[in-house]
Amino acid sequence: MKKVRIGIIGVGNMGTGHATYLQKGDINGAVLTALLDNNQERAELLKEKVSSDVQVFTDEDAFFESGIVDAVLIATPHYEHSHLAIKAFEHGLHVLCEKPAGVYTKQVRKMNEAAEKSDKVFSMMYNQRTNPLYQKLRDLIQTGDLGEIRRINWLITNWYRSQSYYDSGGWRATWAGEGGGVLINQSPHQLDLWQWLTGMMPTRMRAFCHFGKYRDIEVEDDVTAYAEYENGATAVFITTTGEAPGTNRLEISGDRGKVVVENGELNFWRLRVPEPEFNRNFKGGFGAPECWKVEVPIEGKETAHAGITQNFVDAILHGTRLLTPGEEGIKGLTLSNAMQLSTWLDDWVELPIDEELYYKYLQGKIANSTEKKEVKSVSLDVDGTY
Amino acid sequence: MKKVRIGIIGVGNMGTGHATYLQKGDINGAVLTALLDNNQERAELLKEKVSSDVQVFTDEDAFFESGIVDAVLIATPHYEHSHLAIKAFEHGLHVLCEKPAGVYTKQVRKMNEAAEKSDKVFSMMYNQRTNPLYQKLRDLIQTGDLGEIRRINWLITNWYRSQSYYDSGGWRATWAGEGGGVLINQSPHQLDLWQWLTGMMPTRMRAFCHFGKYRDIEVEDDVTAYAEYENGATAVFITTTGEAPGTNRLEISGDRGKVVVENGELNFWRLRVPEPEFNRNFKGGFGAPECWKVEVPIEGKETAHAGITQNFVDAILHGTRLLTPGEEGIKGLTLSNAMQLSTWLDDWVELPIDEELYYKYLQGKIANSTEKKEVKSVSLDVDGTY
Repeated sequence: MKKVRIGIIGVGNMGTGHATYLQKGDINGAVLTALLDNNQERAELLKEKVSSDVQVFTDEDAFFESGIVDAVLIATPHYEHSHLAIKAFEHGLHVLCEKPAGVYTKQVRKMNEAAEKSDKVFSMMYNQRTNPLYQKLRDLIQTGDLGEIRRINWLITNWYRSQSYYDSGGWRATWAGEGGGVLINQSPHQLDLWQWLTGMMPTRMRAFCHFGKYRDIEVEDDVTAYAEYENGATAVFITTTGEAPGTNRLEISGDRGKVVVENGELNFWRLRVPEPEFNRNFKGGFGAPECWKVEVPIEGKETAHAGITQNFVDAILHGTRLLTPGEEGIKGLTLSNAMQLSTWLDDWVELPIDEELYYKYLQGKIANSTEKKEVKSVSLDVDGTY
Repeated sequence: MKKVRIGIIGVGNMGTGHATYLQKGDINGAVLTALLDNNQERAELLKEKVSSDVQVFTDEDAFFESGIVDAVLIATPHYEHSHLAIKAFEHGLHVLCEKPAGVYTKQVRKMNEAAEKSDKVFSMMYNQRTNPLYQKLRDLIQTGDLGEIRRINWLITNWYRSQSYYDSGGWRATWAGEGGGVLINQSPHQLDLWQWLTGMMPTRMRAFCHFGKYRDIEVEDDVTAYAEYENGATAVFITTTGEAPGTNRLEISGDRGKVVVENGELNFWRLRVPEPEFNRNFKGGFGAPECWKVEVPIEGKETAHAGITQNFVDAILHGTRLLTPGEEGIKGLTLSNAMQLSTWLDDWVELPIDEELYYKYLQGKIANSTEKKEVKSVSLDVDGTY
């Protein structure tokens, strides 16, 4: 294979973005050959816009059986991700899937099983993993500079969305259309980073979601979640779309100090001796370990969506190691599902969660949905999204 | 009355500090006339140290019936506060009480009732209310600059205490000696400020205390608490004595922006139009209200303990308004009790809490205490405390 022939499935806001950089030839070793969108009107418009060597499909089976794609990039509404990924694997195609991996872990587990059965490359569009800030933080944690992790506190409340945003698509912020709110649409990157940076998943969680608190929507737009880990560490994750200007501040403390990521900076308060060692040896009253503030230099730039797509193509052509293995998508989704389930049960949720129970509750939410939003189809400028 | 004659009850670490500035004549209109400490050995040492016009008592009744004090400053272990305050009111004395108000709200309510029955001045040593940073923040909130409050997030984890600190007093960090850990000893100031700044008390809380997590103690040394308010606002309060270097960062967001207090600075991200107004009028996709960062100037200095004592004396002599009315002590203690009770019940706690239930649980903890710490009596340099 000289060039990976890519077909994009779902050419809405995000799909259009992917098509644009692929058409510009920004991805080495890749060529855009097909688009699939089940919206007839949009497909007609696309035909006028794309070059003649890109084939536009509205029929899913015709697309999959066309023989003109080696890999698919799935950018449809969330519910369709797993079904389409499974179909792609069954047709011997590589898969790069937009976040989130899906809406409920039961379907994502099936997607992962299909991926495992195939020998195809499977990647997830967790483009924020290309941010050198988070790469450096992960490096700092994984090499032990921070020591044993004790607390994680992420305040990610700068996902402001107005009512007009929600009104721009009838599927937005509905149980049937998205399967959730801020947890499934805006915060999946942070939910992924949360577990990727530390390499830890909680053992149990207690979360407090508020549904339609700030907007006329039925899903969660305000979340506070508390988590506990096997090593005794605890975490708090707070997110909302209702606040302005909001905050994005991640603090992780370990027994060798603490790190804070905020305003594009990574600061590390490094203890000269690990805290447990200080505690063993100190005999005085109010003393604390000596601590130096380190401004950790960040090199490189965030390659974003195109960076993930390039890594995906390199993995297909050259066996390059994936930065965002698709199978890991279930982790962030588990955190998200656990937060909703804990709220619905008004109780603790042990991880991994009871997938069937979550699915049952979600179906109930869909069945009892009272959302009858006037369906508009407005294309948004996605410069402000991720 | 030309000068208020003050007697200090409990001359340990804090009491010694109060005696020192009173003896130096730092408080206008006040004179130190008596000390009461039930530790015979310490009382003997005090007699050698203080000037001859200060009388040292070891007998509580002799002190109260001496007729040489107009006001008492209570700086004993927490359990004794309410009993001593009630006794002082019954003897017609004014009362300035060290924080916390007490250990359980049932006893503090009785203290408040005794204060109300008397016509004496009653103040609480919430010296951090003299910090101009918090005074400005309160002003900013109370005058409506921040708008309706939506979220409070306080990360107050810089209360590092080593095992040697806990070992310096047999009463420290025991249910019988202190009735709690970080919530009752280190964080009462923040628990008070939390409610004083906003003027709001939660309607219910769900908290997660960990007992003896970092140190060989039986009380809580790590706490994450979630709170909900009548107006829909939520809050998270996180505190521990086990982390280094820890953080003290308070963020409050309202519908007109957000404020952050950290590193001695007060920054206010001020929306040009209130968020609800923006939301009503905005018709686009990803827009958010325009926001200006304001570095709020802080004038004046923190007058600390002496400032509270001066205010107390001024209230007695001139009817000056109290900055820290004693009756408000029950509020911070209610938050503290609620956090422990929620953990013990592993469930929500509605506020005001069930005082009898809390008291019952506390008695159980005391009865089942396994702490048999070797009792040492080390005087600590309190420069590092509050």
